[in-house]
Amino acid sequence: MRTGCEVRLVSRPEGLPTVENFAIVDVEVPEPGAGQVLVRNTFMSVDPYMRGRMSDAPSYVEPFEIGKALSGGAVGVVEVSRDARFPVGSTVLHSLGWRTYAEGLAAAFRSVDAVGVSPSAYLGVLGMPGFTAYVGLFVIDDVKAGETVFISSAAGAVGSIAGQLAKLRGARVIGSTRSKDSAKVLRDELHFDDVIVVEPGQIAKQLRNAAPTGIDFYFDNVGGEQLEAAFATLKDHGRVSACGMIAGYCDPVPGPRNMAAIVQKRLKVQGFIVSDHMARNAEFVHAVAPAVASGKISGRETFVNGLEQAPKAFISLFAPGAHIGKLVVRL
Amino acid sequence: MRTGCEVRLVSRPEGLPTVENFAIVDVEVPEPGAGQVLVRNTFMSVDPYMRGRMSDAPSYVEPFEIGKALSGGAVGVVEVSRDARFPVGSTVLHSLGWRTYAEGLAAAFRSVDAVGVSPSAYLGVLGMPGFTAYVGLFVIDDVKAGETVFISSAAGAVGSIAGQLAKLRGARVIGSTRSKDSAKVLRDELHFDDVIVVEPGQIAKQLRNAAPTGIDFYFDNVGGEQLEAAFATLKDHGRVSACGMIAGYCDPVPGPRNMAAIVQKRLKVQGFIVSDHMARNAEFVHAVAPAVASGKISGRETFVNGLEQAPKAFISLFAPGAHIGKLVVRL
Repeated sequence: MRTGCEVRLVSRPEGLPTVENFAIVDVEVPEPGAGQVLVRNTFMSVDPYMRGRMSDAPSYVEPFEIGKALSGGAVGVVEVSRDARFPVGSTVLHSLGWRTYAEGLAAAFRSVDAVGVSPSAYLGVLGMPGFTAYVGLFVIDDVKAGETVFISSAAGAVGSIAGQLAKLRGARVIGSTRSKDSAKVLRDELHFDDVIVVEPGQIAKQLRNAAPTGIDFYFDNVGGEQLEAAFATLKDHGRVSACGMIAGYCDPVPGPRNMAAIVQKRLKVQGFIVSDHMARNAEFVHAVAPAVASGKISGRETFVNGLEQAPKAFISLFAPGAHIGKLVVRL
Repeated sequence: MRTGCEVRLVSRPEGLPTVENFAIVDVEVPEPGAGQVLVRNTFMSVDPYMRGRMSDAPSYVEPFEIGKALSGGAVGVVEVSRDARFPVGSTVLHSLGWRTYAEGLAAAFRSVDAVGVSPSAYLGVLGMPGFTAYVGLFVIDDVKAGETVFISSAAGAVGSIAGQLAKLRGARVIGSTRSKDSAKVLRDELHFDDVIVVEPGQIAKQLRNAAPTGIDFYFDNVGGEQLEAAFATLKDHGRVSACGMIAGYCDPVPGPRNMAAIVQKRLKVQGFIVSDHMARNAEFVHAVAPAVASGKISGRETFVNGLEQAPKAFISLFAPGAHIGKLVVRL
């Protein structure tokens, strides 16, 4: 029997999580039963949505249980297989992250032996974050060439892909970030047309300066003041795809003071959750994988090493400018 | 030459308008020129949206000018006609309210000689307010039988029609009002399934009690805390048609604190302005006029007498429980 390691939630965070909310625990890993596989995880994902599952308020996914291992996207290598579709040594994607070994029925795993793409890409540009960007732009909305698009948290896993996909479509893309270093990367390497380094209290002014004639579409990852700035800057009949409101994940934030803009400018605000749209995932991979392979889309990743660093990596998602693109824990 | 009377805006209101913002002035009414008509107004409309035009902030209609007559929906009787389509004595609808005599090119007037309907109905149930209710329910959205619908400001000109139209469609309809007397009328005469007499700070709880399993659709006339309560109570994939946000027309109100519900519940919030949808007006009249004629839809009106009462009538729109249905000034 192998000895593995897992990260458990030991208390529900109030506000910003701290490392004390987590415990790293050694566990025995039993041999897989009939129809099961045993996977040594090589990469695991930390994502802002996980903060919601750490609370026990009603939400679209059930809360993590206290005293149990967390879970989330991960990729790994099959070490023991009792299902012929998953040979030992093959790479698989699954949702049993936050632990060194994943074990379960084969149906819960998916092969991702794509040629020339790092397996970790399936946690980022070709995974849930990239698909989220695609859904918000092209399933919930239909962003068009020539439109002006604003993307908040543009250096994040979703925003960095959304910006590039909108650019490929021919839109003018303005991003926001809290870090000057990230802004430089977004401009120089990801080819954003303009980037705002947000200054609280000034965001509407900053956005108006970047888009003097207004924006057509806002991809909201943040909520709070950035959503208020978008309402102020959207043109008549503007649209918002609301993907996440990280500003309020840890502590409540006031709603936009200019909600009346929704009526005055006939805005459409549509919230979405990527898992509702899995029927479009194959279309997404088909559309985006070639652009990743050819380098047209950069699936930037920032790596942190070791399961024991996973809680800190997760917490850093809520701090400004900690990383660019997808944050991945290498195990 | 006739002597008429008009109401002018003499100063821009701050917060709630006062009678000092208005002046009633005698004016000479010249004889109509070629192609013009002269109309003696019999009814004029006061509507909440006019508050927006009293400010000079950018909006979807240009602001009223200081020192000039206000304008808005009115009906009247043709006294002098230089256009054969409008015989003397015929009844017309137009947008030159807030004055005793309206004069202009015939193209700005519309005949409303419908049989068995009071001309004032064209300012209410068959006019802009009724059409607004129709657009919010059936053009912006597609409210269906069996759904639970919440309508704020349900005793108002728009809300009272929206509730009845949704009932006719087969929905379960919950209204809100600030007045116990209005609530009784909504229940007993307009057949709302349930009515909340709103208590600030308690609205989400009140709405949850009225709709324990949640609401499917919210017709927003108010914004502010009622919108927050709707976000809290909408089911997954719920929809909001945002028609007006009267709570913030005079003074700013904070935005909903639970904007994240838009993402978590995949809500759609769509603002609209009725004048964008005039192509559907004939369809609306065709659909609703028979129901009004047969008494299935009650176009409740409250009358105030005399142009000199128009400013007070307008101001009363922002006070609780002042009237039920459409508020009309009889001239």
